[in-house]
Amino acid sequence: VAKPLGSIDMRPGVVLRFPDRAVIDEIRAAAAKLEPWLVALRREFHMLPELGWREFETTRRISAELTAMGYEVISGDAFLGGVARLGLGTPPVPHEGETGCIARFDTGKPGPHLCLRVDIDALPIQEAAKDHRPAAENWASQVPGVMHACGHDGHVAVGLGVARLLRQFLGSLCGTLSILFQPAEEGGRGARSVVDAGHLEGVDALLAVHIGLGVPSGTVALGVGGFLATRKYAVRISGTPAHAGKSPEHGRNALLVACQMALGLHTLAQSSVPGTRVNVGTLHAGSSLNIVPDQAVIEFEIRCGEEPDLETLDRRCKFMISHMAGAHGVVAEVSLRGMAGSWENPRRLVNWAASVNDAVLAFPHTTTDYKFGASEDATLLASAVVASGGVAGIFVLGSNLADGHHTPHFDFDEGVLVRGVSLLSAVATTLLSNAG
Amino acid sequence: VAKPLGSIDMRPGVVLRFPDRAVIDEIRAAAAKLEPWLVALRREFHMLPELGWREFETTRRISAELTAMGYEVISGDAFLGGVARLGLGTPPVPHEGETGCIARFDTGKPGPHLCLRVDIDALPIQEAAKDHRPAAENWASQVPGVMHACGHDGHVAVGLGVARLLRQFLGSLCGTLSILFQPAEEGGRGARSVVDAGHLEGVDALLAVHIGLGVPSGTVALGVGGFLATRKYAVRISGTPAHAGKSPEHGRNALLVACQMALGLHTLAQSSVPGTRVNVGTLHAGSSLNIVPDQAVIEFEIRCGEEPDLETLDRRCKFMISHMAGAHGVVAEVSLRGMAGSWENPRRLVNWAASVNDAVLAFPHTTTDYKFGASEDATLLASAVVASGGVAGIFVLGSNLADGHHTPHFDFDEGVLVRGVSLLSAVATTLLSNAG
Amino acid sequence: VAKPLGSIDMRPGVVLRFPDRAVIDEIRAAAAKLEPWLVALRREFHMLPELGWREFETTRRISAELTAMGYEVISGDAFLGGVARLGLGTPPVPHEGETGCIARFDTGKPGPHLCLRVDIDALPIQEAAKDHRPAAENWASQVPGVMHACGHDGHVAVGLGVARLLRQFLGSLCGTLSILFQPAEEGGRGARSVVDAGHLEGVDALLAVHIGLGVPSGTVALGVGGFLATRKYAVRISGTPAHAGKSPEHGRNALLVACQMALGLHTLAQSSVPGTRVNVGTLHAGSSLNIVPDQAVIEFEIRCGEEPDLETLDRRCKFMISHMAGAHGVVAEVSLRGMAGSWENPRRLVNWAASVNDAVLAFPHTTTDYKFGASEDATLLASAVVASGGVAGIFVLGSNLADGHHTPHFDFDEGVLVRGVSLLSAVATTLLSNAG
Amino acid sequence: VAKPLGSIDMRPGVVLRFPDRAVIDEIRAAAAKLEPWLVALRREFHMLPELGWREFETTRRISAELTAMGYEVISGDAFLGGVARLGLGTPPVPHEGETGCIARFDTGKPGPHLCLRVDIDALPIQEAAKDHRPAAENWASQVPGVMHACGHDGHVAVGLGVARLLRQFLGSLCGTLSILFQPAEEGGRGARSVVDAGHLEGVDALLAVHIGLGVPSGTVALGVGGFLATRKYAVRISGTPAHAGKSPEHGRNALLVACQMALGLHTLAQSSVPGTRVNVGTLHAGSSLNIVPDQAVIEFEIRCGEEPDLETLDRRCKFMISHMAGAHGVVAEVSLRGMAGSWENPRRLVNWAASVNDAVLAFPHTTTDYKFGASEDATLLASAVVASGGVAGIFVLGSNLADGHHTPHFDFDEGVLVRGVSLLSAVATTLLSNAG
Repeated sequence: VAKPLGSIDMRPGVVLRFPDRAVIDEIRAAAAKLEPWLVALRREFHMLPELGWREFETTRRISAELTAMGYEVISGDAFLGGVARLGLGTPPVPHEGETGCIARFDTGKPGPHLCLRVDIDALPIQEAAKDHRPAAENWASQVPGVMHACGHDGHVAVGLGVARLLRQFLGSLCGTLSILFQPAEEGGRGARSVVDAGHLEGVDALLAVHIGLGVPSGTVALGVGGFLATRKYAVRISGTPAHAGKSPEHGRNALLVACQMALGLHTLAQSSVPGTRVNVGTLHAGSSLNIVPDQAVIEFEIRCGEEPDLETLDRRCKFMISHMAGAHGVVAEVSLRGMAGSWENPRRLVNWAASVNDAVLAFPHTTTDYKFGASEDATLLASAVVASGGVAGIFVLGSNLADGHHTPHFDFDEGVLVRGVSLLSAVATTLLSNAG
Repeated sequence: VAKPLGSIDMRPGVVLRFPDRAVIDEIRAAAAKLEPWLVALRREFHMLPELGWREFETTRRISAELTAMGYEVISGDAFLGGVARLGLGTPPVPHEGETGCIARFDTGKPGPHLCLRVDIDALPIQEAAKDHRPAAENWASQVPGVMHACGHDGHVAVGLGVARLLRQFLGSLCGTLSILFQPAEEGGRGARSVVDAGHLEGVDALLAVHIGLGVPSGTVALGVGGFLATRKYAVRISGTPAHAGKSPEHGRNALLVACQMALGLHTLAQSSVPGTRVNVGTLHAGSSLNIVPDQAVIEFEIRCGEEPDLETLDRRCKFMISHMAGAHGVVAEVSLRGMAGSWENPRRLVNWAASVNDAVLAFPHTTTDYKFGASEDATLLASAVVASGGVAGIFVLGSNLADGHHTPHFDFDEGVLVRGVSLLSAVATTLLSNAG
Repeated sequence: VAKPLGSIDMRPGVVLRFPDRAVIDEIRAAAAKLEPWLVALRREFHMLPELGWREFETTRRISAELTAMGYEVISGDAFLGGVARLGLGTPPVPHEGETGCIARFDTGKPGPHLCLRVDIDALPIQEAAKDHRPAAENWASQVPGVMHACGHDGHVAVGLGVARLLRQFLGSLCGTLSILFQPAEEGGRGARSVVDAGHLEGVDALLAVHIGLGVPSGTVALGVGGFLATRKYAVRISGTPAHAGKSPEHGRNALLVACQMALGLHTLAQSSVPGTRVNVGTLHAGSSLNIVPDQAVIEFEIRCGEEPDLETLDRRCKFMISHMAGAHGVVAEVSLRGMAGSWENPRRLVNWAASVNDAVLAFPHTTTDYKFGASEDATLLASAVVASGGVAGIFVLGSNLADGHHTPHFDFDEGVLVRGVSLLSAVATTLLSNAG
Repeated sequence: VAKPLGSIDMRPGVVLRFPDRAVIDEIRAAAAKLEPWLVALRREFHMLPELGWREFETTRRISAELTAMGYEVISGDAFLGGVARLGLGTPPVPHEGETGCIARFDTGKPGPHLCLRVDIDALPIQEAAKDHRPAAENWASQVPGVMHACGHDGHVAVGLGVARLLRQFLGSLCGTLSILFQPAEEGGRGARSVVDAGHLEGVDALLAVHIGLGVPSGTVALGVGGFLATRKYAVRISGTPAHAGKSPEHGRNALLVACQMALGLHTLAQSSVPGTRVNVGTLHAGSSLNIVPDQAVIEFEIRCGEEPDLETLDRRCKFMISHMAGAHGVVAEVSLRGMAGSWENPRRLVNWAASVNDAVLAFPHTTTDYKFGASEDATLLASAVVASGGVAGIFVLGSNLADGHHTPHFDFDEGVLVRGVSLLSAVATTLLSNAG
């Protein structure tokens, strides 16, 4: 039985009132009715996975739904037109279409600006063809080598579900609702651009969600921390070629410097700061057996539980790269390819969200000490909102998994879709019931 | 004026007689008449360069010419059907057609078996479009990214030229003539297969030629040595992937072992044996920034002026690769991709060839102490013939170059074509005039 | 005011009774009277620091005191005669005298066997001559380059203090008391030998103490965990020398393999298990500029918060060393030089000791969640006692420091001496008041 | 039978006359008479070997002999007082005595200035005690760990022998004779100081000799080339220490940078220039297992057959060292420890010396194409003399060896002593018979 509602406080000095009990009950009922549509939606997006910065069809489909619902849709140049996009690749993806968008509804009444964020990109993984429900039921990926193996298809469904459910309530609420369908989360690429484009200016509260991650079906992790701050880089090394047999001394060997760089960078990983990591993930060098290799590219990432220590590590890595190149008489160019921050949901928000969840009965269980242990670029959005005086949280929506994230057999319990829509809708309704 | 002819000796105990003065004069005249055809032929092949083990059209064209001339043509399965082909690549080239062939004419009369060898493959180089005669005269490569940048197009023309010229003389000669159009010389791949297929069994004399290489137009290098023996390898390293952030200790890092291997192999290059070299030419490892890389491939070559020392170096490299992999708990598989031997033309052959050249006046100048300083897999053919009691030589046919071998502006003085046909034809006629 | 005493339980099913209030009061008073002697004793040992396995004079002095008090003293061959001693060095220290000993008193009455452990060795550090109390007051180290810079001089004083104080009570107690004056704690060398020699067989309770470590004066850390398990190794690498100019290829370079080994070992440090560390602390290779170096020695240590993970790391390191040597054609011999385990004081013991401390008023404050964060070989003693059914604990006796441990300006607040004697004596008396 | 004497030319435009036949005969006879003294002298110095820059007793003994013969002896501050001495070590050798000297005799008559050079230092090698003539005959080294294992004891004897023999002839000659007893030849340290001190200014001809080196007894190598130019360095690396367990990230690891430096430097050895070598001969780093090592020292040498290429290699090494240090945030200081140059005896000098040898019948055989294949700092002296317009040569005096140079069983055929004295005395007499 849902608990009686009352007043709650979230930010220091701010006491939020709950909406009427009837409204909360209505939300729960409305969410339940959306289930078949949510499942169908998730599977539709599952069949059409698109890599980060290439979510053209995904965005087209999302925009169409949102427009039909009556939302203002911010996309294309209006979305990220004027900002650099991290990790766009070489050669860069042409602007073949729009990638990502924001649904917005301004009630016209004074009140808070709430932004809900879901991410929409897929992974370069070939989906399993056997012993795999999507394959057995004929809704597996239709794109060879690309798969929604992290649950972002579900995130899209939840985002659209909340949009559809809240549409009927928005007229009686105050403030502004934004739903961000963020591109290129994988590799920590998209969030930075969203911040740079100014879309979080004026946002009072930001909520992001992720499905799965080890949290079982029926449980929502509200107290979430332990995000690893991360930076991802590419290093291009340019040396001088030479005939390896006739005059090796004329070469400046980019391959060997890349090797020394990789080994050198890895020596920097040892630290007393939890979560410190260095990983040279790829190294590609040379073109021919009989030439002293003059070109090499390495990609690496660093992680750390504490942002200041990550900054220190970042400086040491760049210093090492630059000097190691100099040591061999070659040139190295470093470019940032992705990033994410550290984060811990604030206690007041956790308590408040727990109250809302108790009211709407979205998830039977909650946990308050979940350690993320990996990286998510929603942290950049959260930190940006906090930096301008707002409040932010990242929730993990529990869902039993068929196999781990980023694997060919990944699949999740779709029961999470209704629960997620229910929780987020109740949270949004509660927040936007207060005139700010 | 041509010198008077006489008896010469080549192998110990064998005294070769020269053919009649008239025959030599006839050869010179016949070669001169072939010039327009030779130049056209060279340019035709220049326009259709094909990489090693993919000389399908080249072989088809050569075979057609040879068949029309009346030669027996050994190609396809009869040529290399039953033997492994080094450096065929992964995935291997399908048998889309025939690559390389042998033209053979057996006079039916007792006598020596002479094999002339030319090579036919091109290089993965984009031909220059400016300041380059083939481009200016519209006979540049028609295949993007592939170019006859080493003169093998000229070699094909010389081989066909000799075939055409000798055809009229063969009836009055004795023994057998073979002309080997060898595939995949670049990277030292084709010769080993020719040896393995047994085509050199019973060959009494082998002569191979190469155009250019720093020898000026009008000069032929007959005394040629200083070939560097070489082996070329690919190493595939297979480790264990792991999430670089969550559990790096579960990974077995193929990238880092490749780096240590590259640095380790390079420490083996230091030697008092001239020409000792180690070059890790390519390294490709890893697929994703956030995964401990579990796959790496390196390609490397070793060279040495002395074959026994190369064997020692070969063993040390393999030993290092195997143990270095073991040190990191990964598996490394080494595969041979190419090879060539050391070589020095025997003095008697040099003197004899000089006499023939003096007689036919093919090249005004000869040199007898040319140091090759690089690798050529004709050395394997030469050594195989010597090992079974024959005699062999590799001649460099001088030709001024527009730019260095293996560069986009490479081109050569086509005057070498007639000279080369003239010399080889005279040599062949002389040898096959002797009943053995 | 001391709390009233009562019954406490320590091990499952065992209820310990406290001694009479009067006894506890007597202990506190007796400890206070010892202060001048304890301080003088500490300073005497401070002036004569001796390195691990060389505590000859230290042991002679301790033994003399203990014998005069009436204890049985186990030393020399009876102490560690039959066991290997880790990290003895090359060449090994001659048996110039006795290093370490055990004071023992058997009451003859049935009861538990309690072992108190203090360590006695000093460090290879030159003591500061300026701005340093020992120097200013003329009781600084008299041994150049050797210093009690970790507080073991204070440990010796506490051990002898407890021996002296308890001597008067032992007649009325039951069971057996041992006080272990352990040699060679630095580098994790001595404890393993004590275990191997069987001195912990039959010991029911073991208590070890350490002064300082960041715990302030007046506080005792009873709940102590977070010890890093560690192994320390020396690796001797033997290659083949060669003249570096004339024939480098004949050498098998021990220096370069040591370099690759050091870099390789450091790549193993990256782990999700807290406290994982690899440190190649020393590398010594080669003897002459113009010789390919054939000899190298590296010393390294590994640490880990979890023993099973340390075992895994240990195996990977040894595997790497062995194969890396093989890769370069050299031989590597690994020898264990020191070790320590992980440890966490059991909660029942912590509570019980807190009760005793409350009773005797030794330290005004206690902490119960101290993280050691480094390594101590008392952990091996503790684990051995637990493995045979006993109970064990390691306490940190708070003392303000002049500078950090292992630094030339290290000094501690000597007020800790009386407090430590008081606590340990009360603990011992309590335990040995129970007939077991 | 000695050949008749005549006029010879050495430098362009200079025709040297031979002295009278009688003088030459007299020299040969005088040399023969010195043999017992030469042998005794050599063995005396063999028993008292002293390392470079520490030849105190050796110099005292040489000076005493020379002074007794009536030579001016330049030693102590007058010898090398004002110049830096390469490779003096840390801490530097105190000026405990004099190391090296020059014997000088100015005839007062106009004429050339001839400088003969021998070297006097020994090696850090323990002389063999068994199967070794010096040991069997009781004249082995009396200094533990130090041995004349390169024949410099014989060089001293030859130098003193020539001084003694020539003394009787000097009155009738013209010009100036210098005999340089050079310290610290091993490691290429002493010659540079001699040049810097200006002792070669005004020298018209310099002749240096070395015993053995593979040239058999009875043969003198007059045509000598193939010296490898070399530079020898020490690099001191200073980083930042840190506790390896508690805060490794605060360290700047000097050991690991030394390892990367060693591997990096070795990658520079690969060259088409004959004789190119890099050898990191020693590496010493770190002091304790549990400290991130902050200090390291490496010593390395480079060699090359061509001086300009050595200069290039020198620059690349220094560049690499500096940047590699920077890459790890440590500081590296490079200091030159020794050096030698390339050299080839000029043809005219070889011919002239051959004539003199023929005349005096010192060595029955001569060779004129000896390749040194190693380094000798006499090359610096020779180049300095040539640079100021003089002529110079380095001769190898053949002598069968018991075992290789720089080995514990090294010994040489002492018959070379008389031959060497005879040849050098005849050469000197011939040269100083010409008024210049």
